Amino acid sequence: MVVKVYGEARAVCPQRVIHCLIEKGVPFELVHVDLDAMEHKRPEFMEKQPFGQVPYVVDGDFELFESRAIARYYASKYADYGPSLLGRTAEERAKVEQWLDVEAMNYNPVAFSIVWNAFILPARGLARKEAKAAAAARKLEAIMEVYEKQLAKSRYLAGEEFTLADLTHIPATRYVVENCNMAHLMEGKQHLKAWWENITGRPGWKKVMEFVETGATKYQP
Amino acid sequence: MVVKVYGEARAVCPQRVIHCLIEKGVPFELVHVDLDAMEHKRPEFMEKQPFGQVPYVVDGDFELFESRAIARYYASKYADYGPSLLGRTAEERAKVEQWLDVEAMNYNPVAFSIVWNAFILPARGLARKEAKAAAAARKLEAIMEVYEKQLAKSRYLAGEEFTLADLTHIPATRYVVENCNMAHLMEGKQHLKAWWENITGRPGWKKVMEFVETGATKYQP
Repeated sequence: MVVKVYGEARAVCPQRVIHCLIEKGVPFELVHVDLDAMEHKRPEFMEKQPFGQVPYVVDGDFELFESRAIARYYASKYADYGPSLLGRTAEERAKVEQWLDVEAMNYNPVAFSIVWNAFILPARGLARKEAKAAAAARKLEAIMEVYEKQLAKSRYLAGEEFTLADLTHIPATRYVVENCNMAHLMEGKQHLKAWWENITGRPGWKKVMEFVETGATKYQP
Repeated sequence: MVVKVYGEARAVCPQRVIHCLIEKGVPFELVHVDLDAMEHKRPEFMEKQPFGQVPYVVDGDFELFESRAIARYYASKYADYGPSLLGRTAEERAKVEQWLDVEAMNYNPVAFSIVWNAFILPARGLARKEAKAAAAARKLEAIMEVYEKQLAKSRYLAGEEFTLADLTHIPATRYVVENCNMAHLMEGKQHLKAWWENITGRPGWKKVMEFVETGATKYQP
């Protein structure tokens, strides 16, 4: 029985989930939800995800939504396989949770504002909102300066191992760097840049990009 | 050795942490950080919390910030004492995490917008931003309609027991209901109202309110 992930491979939150499943070697099937056609706002979708957001997963008779909660669940369920994405002690997990929450509460709203104003609006044929994107970019740079200091102290955000704290940042940051003309935000931040090259060089993340590029829907480790 | 919580009892995020500590019977000392005097933006504070936000905790030589991460840590560390705030199985915890993330990603930004525009600005002698507060109130009501359906199915958000999923909502919602003239948002939502009366009637939450009203700084169960 494979996990069914309802979403679109190019969307940020489904990418967080499928990256986690790949790191943990969990077979899954991606069930395409057409966001352009607003399928995520249809009643049959909202029966499963009442806020009309992707992704949700169906795993036998267990269903779950919210990408970070899904990632935590599989990271915990398969704790003994692959990288220890939640740390090995209560204190290590707490530090993973701290940086997961920094991403959710501080980093993501700002990164999303950049992606929305500088990429999604133009992709929909609307004007790029330059001033809003620039204001968000200044905030993101201030956050990245904190990350630079942290990454000078430890190889990954929550310590010496790759965890969900790092993984959760990848999808939105890739859009910021590659699609919003904002790669300069990382300039002069050597530890941040080394971290970014390291975590996006992982085979697991490259596999996520394969899903985006090929339209593949099935993963079997 | 007691846990030191750096923050202010009237602030939303410290309330989330001290409520959790009280539910779990963990002695703590509240170390006052004067937000009006911007003490949370001073270098010595930002050495501990690099984003300049309250609270952070110091527990012997272990330090942690982000209120939801702190709550998860103590709920997990003292899993066997008091209410099972994270569920009892992996699937129960996953549902708790789902609703924790709904609060963090959907509910909190909207509730905070109401509190900011309808309470904090006037409290600082600035004009209440009526249109912004009203727009956020419409969004919060739509979210509350989803909660009403969920709470018709289970007594608490994540099931039949009080968990962090419920606890995390209380501080900001209290400001919305009591200080922003928005109690009408709950009207006609009988399950939501019963849930709200239930969770704010807990001795643990009443103790939090005592800290706000009396200026007490020490908790010993």
